[in-house]
Amino acid sequence: MDDDGIETDAWAADEGPGAGAPIPASAAWREGDHPGRRVFMPIGDLPLEADPLGTLPDVTLAYETWGELNAAKDNAVYIAHALTGDMHVWGPAEPGHHTGGWWNAMVGPGKPIDPARHFIVSANVVGGCQGTTGPASAHPEDGKPWGSRFPYVTMRDMVSAEIRLADALGIERWRLIAGPSMGGMRAIEWTVMAPGRVGAIAPVGSTAAVTADQIAWSTTQLAAIQADPNFRGGDYYDAADGEGPHTGLGIARMIAHTTYRSEGELAERFGRTYQGGGDPLGKGGMFAIQSYLQHHARKLARRFDANTYLRLAQAIQSHDVGRGRGGVETALARYTDPALVVAVDSDRLYPLKNSQRLDAALSGSAGVKVVHSPVGHDGFLVESGQLNAFMAEFEAGL
Amino acid sequence: MDDDGIETDAWAADEGPGAGAPIPASAAWREGDHPGRRVFMPIGDLPLEADPLGTLPDVTLAYETWGELNAAKDNAVYIAHALTGDMHVWGPAEPGHHTGGWWNAMVGPGKPIDPARHFIVSANVVGGCQGTTGPASAHPEDGKPWGSRFPYVTMRDMVSAEIRLADALGIERWRLIAGPSMGGMRAIEWTVMAPGRVGAIAPVGSTAAVTADQIAWSTTQLAAIQADPNFRGGDYYDAADGEGPHTGLGIARMIAHTTYRSEGELAERFGRTYQGGGDPLGKGGMFAIQSYLQHHARKLARRFDANTYLRLAQAIQSHDVGRGRGGVETALARYTDPALVVAVDSDRLYPLKNSQRLDAALSGSAGVKVVHSPVGHDGFLVESGQLNAFMAEFEAGL
Repeated sequence: MDDDGIETDAWAADEGPGAGAPIPASAAWREGDHPGRRVFMPIGDLPLEADPLGTLPDVTLAYETWGELNAAKDNAVYIAHALTGDMHVWGPAEPGHHTGGWWNAMVGPGKPIDPARHFIVSANVVGGCQGTTGPASAHPEDGKPWGSRFPYVTMRDMVSAEIRLADALGIERWRLIAGPSMGGMRAIEWTVMAPGRVGAIAPVGSTAAVTADQIAWSTTQLAAIQADPNFRGGDYYDAADGEGPHTGLGIARMIAHTTYRSEGELAERFGRTYQGGGDPLGKGGMFAIQSYLQHHARKLARRFDANTYLRLAQAIQSHDVGRGRGGVETALARYTDPALVVAVDSDRLYPLKNSQRLDAALSGSAGVKVVHSPVGHDGFLVESGQLNAFMAEFEAGL
Repeated sequence: MDDDGIETDAWAADEGPGAGAPIPASAAWREGDHPGRRVFMPIGDLPLEADPLGTLPDVTLAYETWGELNAAKDNAVYIAHALTGDMHVWGPAEPGHHTGGWWNAMVGPGKPIDPARHFIVSANVVGGCQGTTGPASAHPEDGKPWGSRFPYVTMRDMVSAEIRLADALGIERWRLIAGPSMGGMRAIEWTVMAPGRVGAIAPVGSTAAVTADQIAWSTTQLAAIQADPNFRGGDYYDAADGEGPHTGLGIARMIAHTTYRSEGELAERFGRTYQGGGDPLGKGGMFAIQSYLQHHARKLARRFDANTYLRLAQAIQSHDVGRGRGGVETALARYTDPALVVAVDSDRLYPLKNSQRLDAALSGSAGVKVVHSPVGHDGFLVESGQLNAFMAEFEAGL
């Protein structure tokens, strides 16, 4: 699976809906598209932390819920998605949803997060491309896509929007906010931005502050997107199918995907095998690992939006829970409620020591829970048995 | 320093010759340019291992030498350069040479490789861009650059050419063949292709067979080059300054450079510092790590050729000393002369275990010599004291 939980096993063939057809300029959900399970919540104008625009007007969040809020209002769980994930946490691929729920392994009857017991909420982030206001959305002034005009959003802007959603849903305090990777970053921000409203957090394969190495990797990805002539500075929404920035977005994905897996897993799984019997040594064939990366490049281009990738990757770069707050340790010291900090031991993008620092700064964390996996960052999805055991035990103790 | 030993410390400013001016389409050395210290050796038509072309006609090698071949002809040392290095191993930047010698720390009076004692030879590889026949060279039929027509070359093709150079120079047996990274790969190939002519090898931060992970990283780099519209499929040599594929080549370099350094070194050196006081959070500034990567991108584009990068990266992908020879261990079993296998403990591109496998397969290796460094792959250059001590001891025992 990917960072966002989309299946990766069927990598050898590009099958399924849309395979082989030209890739649309953007796979963003747009007004008029099938809503699927989405519910829409207008939250008004959103003050922006950093962008000179100051405010993002007329923001709407697309979200999904499962289960019911109980009378005591103490069973609400927020699931925060990662970079290329969305609010479709649980369920099948269906009209309106390109893919099945990215955390089907964690959510469902008998799972640690269970709609029979929990009121589960997840929203697409501000800047996203699955129904929440983002670069592909209509600008309120001219009705055309925001495109290059869409502002720089930070992790804190995303959480500001989530706080408004909680207000609107009548959730005064989350029982738990859980999420992997970028989702974990928002869980962490919640503890500072609305500490009284967070009962517990579970950041998985995440970090309190994005590091130079993580900035470096996303810098190469953003450069690949921006260098694609079909990106047109971000104003590509009227391009014909096949003429959007899918090459740049695909290269970004290939870089990212390599960081999501481990050296050892790639060696074990692909080695130096040739794809389909073709000879890569001057004969036009490719190595299996190359086919695998190309598959993931095309797959993301079919379901995502390049501007959203850009803005979300920048938001990740902005992430430092200690910024303007006296540093990570000071910022997190005031939060004393429970925290489940999970890391994958072979994760080379968000290495174990990121989680160790987070654990040390959170008085409510009882040590990093380590998922043992050869897979790397994606291990949090592949090794769902280990992660579920951690989550079930943690959740039961809340 | 880089993979190839070019200085990296002056990263914050783009100074020196050519800084600020438009980047030429190719920085390849071309006929008519100042030869610098180059000597040219025509070696005739070169049979190609893999490319359907079968033969590369009229090959010329550009090489340099230092010191004298002694009467016994037993003091010749071959230095094999890495991906973006060349035959200018030792000496200053001077007319004809963009940069100073990439292994000035290893070669020179009183150094482990010393022109007072050794006859030192280094040639630019086939496919290179510093005087040896490569994509920027004139095609013998029409006098225009080979460009996209230049064939796929393998590590073995490069060594075939080096064997002819040894023949022409009257060197029947090298005292030592040493090189880092891709240079080490050629040293390893020599042991199988001409075992009686190799007295000793010293592969540094290298591997017996390129792994899936290494193929993945270079795949993303090649994709970035090929996606640059100014690459024009490889036929960009008549483009005006500033209109060559320097964006794609620069992105390739940013990816590569990140793999050459370690997560910890980048954290220590750059952290989340802003470059020059600019604010990267929506205000147009950048993080220091981003400035550093951009600096290296521009610097490589000013001194290299995109087609050469492509062909050499593909040659690296092709590298498996055991291919068609019963596997790595079988292929290397026949070589019983001394080998110095060196690895950097923090190298994430050519990790220690690559060298451990190589050591295990080479009966003449007395265990991997580990350079302790926080820097990563580039540690072999940064920690020259440690590497020189290994090399001096090894060389003295030959």
